[in-house]
Amino acid sequence: MSEFTIMDLRRPPLGRRLRLGVVGGGRGGLVGQWHASGVRLSNHWEIVAGALSSRPDNAALSATDWIIPPERSYTDWAEMARVEAAREDGVEAVFVCTPNFTHHDISAAFLKAGIAVICDKPMTRTVEEAHSLAGIAAETGTPLFVTYPYMHHAMARQAAEMVATGAIGKIRQIRAEYLQDWATGPADPESSGQAWRQDPAKVGRTAAVADIGTHAFHALEYMSGLRADALRADFHTCGAPKGGLEDTAFISLKMQDDVPAHLHISQAAPGQHCGLRVQIWGDEGGIYWDQEHPELLRHAPLGQPERHLVRGQAGSMGNGASWLSHLPPGHSEALPDAWSNLYAEMGFALASHLIGTTLPEGLIQTWDVSEGVRGVVFSDRCADSHEAGGIWLQI
Amino acid sequence: MSEFTIMDLRRPPLGRRLRLGVVGGGRGGLVGQWHASGVRLSNHWEIVAGALSSRPDNAALSATDWIIPPERSYTDWAEMARVEAAREDGVEAVFVCTPNFTHHDISAAFLKAGIAVICDKPMTRTVEEAHSLAGIAAETGTPLFVTYPYMHHAMARQAAEMVATGAIGKIRQIRAEYLQDWATGPADPESSGQAWRQDPAKVGRTAAVADIGTHAFHALEYMSGLRADALRADFHTCGAPKGGLEDTAFISLKMQDDVPAHLHISQAAPGQHCGLRVQIWGDEGGIYWDQEHPELLRHAPLGQPERHLVRGQAGSMGNGASWLSHLPPGHSEALPDAWSNLYAEMGFALASHLIGTTLPEGLIQTWDVSEGVRGVVFSDRCADSHEAGGIWLQI
Amino acid sequence: MSEFTIMDLRRPPLGRRLRLGVVGGGRGGLVGQWHASGVRLSNHWEIVAGALSSRPDNAALSATDWIIPPERSYTDWAEMARVEAAREDGVEAVFVCTPNFTHHDISAAFLKAGIAVICDKPMTRTVEEAHSLAGIAAETGTPLFVTYPYMHHAMARQAAEMVATGAIGKIRQIRAEYLQDWATGPADPESSGQAWRQDPAKVGRTAAVADIGTHAFHALEYMSGLRADALRADFHTCGAPKGGLEDTAFISLKMQDDVPAHLHISQAAPGQHCGLRVQIWGDEGGIYWDQEHPELLRHAPLGQPERHLVRGQAGSMGNGASWLSHLPPGHSEALPDAWSNLYAEMGFALASHLIGTTLPEGLIQTWDVSEGVRGVVFSDRCADSHEAGGIWLQI
Amino acid sequence: MSEFTIMDLRRPPLGRRLRLGVVGGGRGGLVGQWHASGVRLSNHWEIVAGALSSRPDNAALSATDWIIPPERSYTDWAEMARVEAAREDGVEAVFVCTPNFTHHDISAAFLKAGIAVICDKPMTRTVEEAHSLAGIAAETGTPLFVTYPYMHHAMARQAAEMVATGAIGKIRQIRAEYLQDWATGPADPESSGQAWRQDPAKVGRTAAVADIGTHAFHALEYMSGLRADALRADFHTCGAPKGGLEDTAFISLKMQDDVPAHLHISQAAPGQHCGLRVQIWGDEGGIYWDQEHPELLRHAPLGQPERHLVRGQAGSMGNGASWLSHLPPGHSEALPDAWSNLYAEMGFALASHLIGTTLPEGLIQTWDVSEGVRGVVFSDRCADSHEAGGIWLQI
Repeated sequence: MSEFTIMDLRRPPLGRRLRLGVVGGGRGGLVGQWHASGVRLSNHWEIVAGALSSRPDNAALSATDWIIPPERSYTDWAEMARVEAAREDGVEAVFVCTPNFTHHDISAAFLKAGIAVICDKPMTRTVEEAHSLAGIAAETGTPLFVTYPYMHHAMARQAAEMVATGAIGKIRQIRAEYLQDWATGPADPESSGQAWRQDPAKVGRTAAVADIGTHAFHALEYMSGLRADALRADFHTCGAPKGGLEDTAFISLKMQDDVPAHLHISQAAPGQHCGLRVQIWGDEGGIYWDQEHPELLRHAPLGQPERHLVRGQAGSMGNGASWLSHLPPGHSEALPDAWSNLYAEMGFALASHLIGTTLPEGLIQTWDVSEGVRGVVFSDRCADSHEAGGIWLQI
Repeated sequence: MSEFTIMDLRRPPLGRRLRLGVVGGGRGGLVGQWHASGVRLSNHWEIVAGALSSRPDNAALSATDWIIPPERSYTDWAEMARVEAAREDGVEAVFVCTPNFTHHDISAAFLKAGIAVICDKPMTRTVEEAHSLAGIAAETGTPLFVTYPYMHHAMARQAAEMVATGAIGKIRQIRAEYLQDWATGPADPESSGQAWRQDPAKVGRTAAVADIGTHAFHALEYMSGLRADALRADFHTCGAPKGGLEDTAFISLKMQDDVPAHLHISQAAPGQHCGLRVQIWGDEGGIYWDQEHPELLRHAPLGQPERHLVRGQAGSMGNGASWLSHLPPGHSEALPDAWSNLYAEMGFALASHLIGTTLPEGLIQTWDVSEGVRGVVFSDRCADSHEAGGIWLQI
Repeated sequence: MSEFTIMDLRRPPLGRRLRLGVVGGGRGGLVGQWHASGVRLSNHWEIVAGALSSRPDNAALSATDWIIPPERSYTDWAEMARVEAAREDGVEAVFVCTPNFTHHDISAAFLKAGIAVICDKPMTRTVEEAHSLAGIAAETGTPLFVTYPYMHHAMARQAAEMVATGAIGKIRQIRAEYLQDWATGPADPESSGQAWRQDPAKVGRTAAVADIGTHAFHALEYMSGLRADALRADFHTCGAPKGGLEDTAFISLKMQDDVPAHLHISQAAPGQHCGLRVQIWGDEGGIYWDQEHPELLRHAPLGQPERHLVRGQAGSMGNGASWLSHLPPGHSEALPDAWSNLYAEMGFALASHLIGTTLPEGLIQTWDVSEGVRGVVFSDRCADSHEAGGIWLQI
Repeated sequence: MSEFTIMDLRRPPLGRRLRLGVVGGGRGGLVGQWHASGVRLSNHWEIVAGALSSRPDNAALSATDWIIPPERSYTDWAEMARVEAAREDGVEAVFVCTPNFTHHDISAAFLKAGIAVICDKPMTRTVEEAHSLAGIAAETGTPLFVTYPYMHHAMARQAAEMVATGAIGKIRQIRAEYLQDWATGPADPESSGQAWRQDPAKVGRTAAVADIGTHAFHALEYMSGLRADALRADFHTCGAPKGGLEDTAFISLKMQDDVPAHLHISQAAPGQHCGLRVQIWGDEGGIYWDQEHPELLRHAPLGQPERHLVRGQAGSMGNGASWLSHLPPGHSEALPDAWSNLYAEMGFALASHLIGTTLPEGLIQTWDVSEGVRGVVFSDRCADSHEAGGIWLQI
C-alpha cells in the first residue's frame, strides 16, 4: 500500500522538481509546446536539457525559447543520451515529441542509458517496433510512458468512473468519433506537421488512424472500461490525395461481452476541428463526452431528464476524478491559459521597464493601475446610488 | 517604437525568467493557485520567495508545496519586502492574492521597497486606498499591475478587436452579467474565501459588486471600447443574509455617446457557476461572448446567419488576439490542464519508482506501455482489415 | 365542479366545431395566419365568415384562400357583426387580428352584437380603451378573450407549475427579455406590419413595449406566479428613428414580496429573432425557458447538475401541462408543420391529378411510390446482409 | 409546364378542400394524430369518413373525436372502400395509419376502388408486397403516396438545395443516425404501438430498421441527393429481448460515386428521443441537420466560421424551401402547436359558456380580459416612467 493518497498528486512528492529533457520541440513544432504546458503547469518537472532540433541554428534559437543553457542544448539525441546519463545532475526523464517514425530509436537509446522516456502517441510506426520498445523497457527496468492526454480531463475520468460504478447499467452499445478538417485540402507548406503525417514513407500503413484514431480507440476503451476483441475497417481518402494513405476510416468493433461499437475517424471533415466524442449507452442510461467541451458531461438516466454535470460541482465528482479538478465549476480549465497570457504580458512589461524599452505595438495594458482604480470607484458609486434609492450618478 | 513585435510575447525577452514572490497563497486559498498557473504556463517567471501565510506551520507546509526554499519563506510580508529588497537575487516582483482589505498596505510596502507589485482585483477596499496606492506607484516609479484575467482569453480580445474595427457597426446597446450561486446559502465553514467576502468589516460597502461586478464592468468597457459616464444601482440580498451586504445588483449604465447598458450581478443565482457574459449590439450586427465557453465568439451580422468563430481558426483571428491563441482550434485552451494532470501523474510515478514506493490507490496508469503497444496494434489491424476488403479481425 | 377533466380539452365538447369569423387576415398579413393555424390544428373551430380586408378585391381574393363562401365575405366589419348576429348559423365568435389601434371599436361592435371576441394582444391602444372594452364585455355578458399564445407551449406551463409547486423554492430574482432585430434599419416597405407598428399616430405612446414587451411581461408574471407592484422604465431608440417611439426598453420591476426583476425589450438587437426568454431564481434552484427552443426546460436544483426536461418525457410533465403535449418527446411540436407541408403537397398533387394539370416546377415528390418501395427494399437488404454475417450487398 | 408556381401550394388549388378518409387512428393511436395535424393545418383537406377501429365501440367513440358523422364511420375498411367509392360525395383519398403489416391489403382495396391512398411508411412488410402495391397503383392509375414527413421541414429541404447547388462542394462522406430509447426496456403494456412493432409475426424480418431506419435512409438519400448502391448491416438487440428482432443496427453504405456513408439506428439508446441527424461533408464544406432542432441548419464552409442558418431569415432560404417556411425566424414551427392549445382552451371556454357548465379544474384562463387590460396598463406605465426620467411607479 502506498503512503500517499490520490490527492497527494497535487504536489511533487520529493519536495523538488524532477529533471526533464526534451527531444524534438524546436521552433515550428506544436506537440512539444503541449507537453511543455503540462510540464510547467504541473510543477512536478523542470526542463533542463534538450535535443530540440538536428539543425544547429534552430537548436540554439529554440534553446533560448525553452531557457535551456547552451551546454545542455544538443543537436544529436544519441549524444544527449550519453552525456546526460553521465552527468551527476543529468535528466531523469525525457519526453519525445518527434515525428512518429523516429520514436523507437530515440526512446530505445534513452531507455538503454537508464533515462525514463515519455513517448508521444502513437508509440511507434510498426507493431514490431512497439514490441521491441516494450521489450527494451522491460529489460532495462527503466520507466516508459506513452501519452494520451485527453483522458486526463477531469470529466473524461468522471465518465469512466460513473460507467464503472453503474450509472448507465450494463453497457450495450458505443459510438466514438474523432473528426478534423486540416487534411481536406493539400498539405499546407507552412506547417511542419502536415507533410510527414501524410507521407507513407514516414508514417507506414496508416495516417489518420495512427494519428487520431489511436486517441479515439484509447478513449473508447478507457471510458467504457471494455476491451475490443475484434475490428473491421474501411479506409477512404475523402480529402486531397495522400499517396494512397487514408484520411478517413469507418471502423466497427466487437468489444468484450459482444458489445458493438463504431468509430468514425476523419481528418477531411470540413468544419470539424478536434471533434473527439464518445457516447456510451447501457441498459439504464447513456453518457456523452466531447473533447471540445471538456468541462461538461451529459448523463441521461433512462426515463429521467438529462443531467449536465459540470466539472467541480459539489456532489458531482467521484474520488478518482476529483484530484484532476483544480478550479471551481464555471472557472473553466481554460482559465490557466488566460492567466498565462496575462502573466506573459506583465512579465514583458516588467522586463521592458527593467531594460528601458517600450511595449510592442498593439498591446493593451488591461493591468494598468487606472483600471484598478476604476473598479474600486465603480463599486463605490454603485453603493452610493443604491443608498440614495437607485439614482443616476456620474462615474 | 519597440524593438519587439507582439508575437515576441511568447518568449521571455531577457532570455531568463523574472524572479517572483508571492504574498498570500497558503494552503486552502484558491486565487493564489490561479496566479501560479499563469506564472508557470507563461514561462516568463520563476517563483522564488513567498509570505504564504502568517501562521508559521501553514507557511512552512505551503512553502514545500510551492517549492520555495525555507530561507525565503516568510510569515511577515513586511519583513519579506525588506529582506528581498536587500538581496542581490531578490524578487523583482510579487503578486498579492490576500483578501482585498489587505491589498493596500501590502502593495504599498513592496512598492516602497522598489519591488513591482501584481495586485489581484479589486485593487483596494475603498476609493481613498485606491488613489493612495496609485499615488505611491507614481511617486516610486515602481510598476503596479492589477489583474483582470478574463479579458486575456483570445476570443475576448478578438471580440474587442472586431467591435473596434466595425464588425457590428456603431454600438447601440450592451448587456452584461456575472452570475454565480455559491452565496445562495450560508457561508460554507470549510471555505477560506466565503466568510470574509461577506463580512462588512472586511470588504467595506459592497460584496458581490466588488468581487465579481468589477470583472463584469471591466469586461463591458474592454470589449465595447466605451467608457461608462454614469450609473444607477439597486442592491438586493437574494441569498442568505450577509450583514446587510448585497449579493445581487441590477445596474444601469450610460456609456459614452449615450449608449445604454445593463449589468446583472449575482452570487445567489442557483445553477449559475461563473456566468460572465457580454452581449453588444450595434447598428450592423451583434456579438456575444461567454466566459464559460471562452473559445467561442458568436457574431451576427445584421440580416445574415450567425457565425460561430472558434479560437485559432484560419482567417478568424485579428492581429492583437492571435498571439494569445496557442493551440489549433478545437484543441481547447483547457488542454494544458489535461496535460498537466498527465505530467503530474507521470512525475509521481517516476518519483515513486526512484524512491521505491507504490502508487496511490485509485490511480489508473493510462500511460502504461501496454496502452502504447495497443494503439499501434489497433492501427495495424485496421490496415489489415481494410486491405482484406473490410473483414472482421481479432485484435 | 365541471363534468370535464382537463384532458377533455383534446376534443370539442359539443361534438361539433364552433362557428368562427375572422376580422383582418387578408393577404399580406401574418398574425391572422397564426390564429388560423391554432384554429385548424385544435379542431375545435370552423372558420365560416370573415371581414378579411376593407378593399373589395383583397377581401374576395383572401376569402378564396380561407375557403369562405362569397356571401359571408365582408368588407365592412360592422356589417358583418350585424348580419352574422342575425343569421341562424351565424358565427359564435370572431378573432380580431387587425392593427392594435382598431381593436377597441371592432371588438365592441361584436360584443354588442352578442358575438364572442378573441382579440389579439395588446388588447387596445390606450388604458381608457382597455377599461372601456372590459366594461362592454362585462355589461353584455359576452365572452372576450385576449391571446398570449407563448404561454400555451407545454414547457412554459410546465415551468409555471414547477415554480408554483416549489421546484426552485421561494422566488428571489427574475430576468426576462424579448429581443428581435427587424426594426434595426428603416421599415421594410414590402411589409404590411412594420410601418404601422412604428407610427405614433397608430400605436400611441409605445411601440416595442406594447408589441412585444406585453408578451414578456405576461410571461414573467405567468411563469413566476407573482404580480408586479411597481416599475421603472428607460426607453431608447437603438435602430433607425421611429418618430420618437422607442424600439428598446430597460424596465426594472418590483414584484410581490419585494422580488426584483428586470426586463429587456428590443426590436433593434441584430441577430435576435424572437428571443423571449425567462429566467427565475429561487432559494433552492433556478429555471430557464426560451421561446425559440420551446420544447426544453432547464432546471437547476441548487447544488445539483442542471436537468434538461424535454416535453413529453415520462415523469417530467405536471398535470396541467400534460394535456398540452401531443407528441412523444423528440417529435417536436414543429412536426405538425412538416406534416402540413407534406399534406399540402399531396393535396396539390391529387388536385392536379383530378384536373389533369402538372405539378409546379421545383416540387420534389418525396411521397412517390418508388420511395416507398425503396424503403422496404432497404430494410430487407439490411436483414439479408446481417444474416449473411455482415457482408456487402447491392441495393 | 404547370400553370402554378411553387408558392401556390399555400392554397387549395380547387378553391375547396379535398374529401379525405382515415383508416386506423382510433383512440390510443399516435400516428393518425400526426397525419391529422398535417391535414388540418394545411387547409387542403377535410376529413369526412373513417374506419377508425375494427371494434365498434372504439370506432364510434373515435368518430366523435374526429367529428365524423355516424353514417360514415365504418368498422370494416373493405366496406368503407366499397361504400365511399359509390357515394357521389365519397372520399377522394384515404390515409392509412394502421400497423405496417396491414398496409398492403388495405391500400390495394382502396386503389382498386379508385380512391387515392396516402400510406404511412414503411409502405409494406415485405418487398413482394411493396412491388405488388406499386403494380396495383400503376395498373389502376390511382395515386399512391408514401409519407416521409421529416423532409418537409423547411431546413431539411434547404439543406438538400444547398448541397445540390454546391454549398459544400463535391460530397465525400456522410453520417446519419436515428436514435430513440423507448425499446430499452420491455414493451409498455399501456402503449398500443410498442408490442406489434417488436413482434416478428407482424413486422417481418426487421423492427427498428423498418420503423425508423427507413426514415434515416430516406433522409440521407434526400439531403445528399445521392443514391445508395450497396450496403452492409450488423443487427443487435441492445434493449430487452424482442423475439430475435433487432432494436439496433450499424449499417455501412456505398453511395453513388463511391461516397462512403454510415447509418446508426437504435431504439434502445437511453436519453435519445427522436434523434434523426444527418451530417454531410464535401470537399468545400460540411452541413448538419437535427430533427429535434428542425429550424436550424449548421453550415461550415471550409476554413470559415460555422454559420447557423435559421428558418425564414432573409437571404438564407432557397426557392424550393421558401414555400415551406410560414413564420418569421424565431417564431418557431412549433408555434402552431401553442396557438392550437390556446384555441382549444378558448373553444372549450366558449362551449362551456354556451351550455352553462364550468371549466375543468386546473385550467388557467390566460386569455382573461383582465390580462388584456394589464398589458395595456403595463405599456402605459412604462411610458409614464420613462417620460418622468426613469422613476419608480406603481402598476
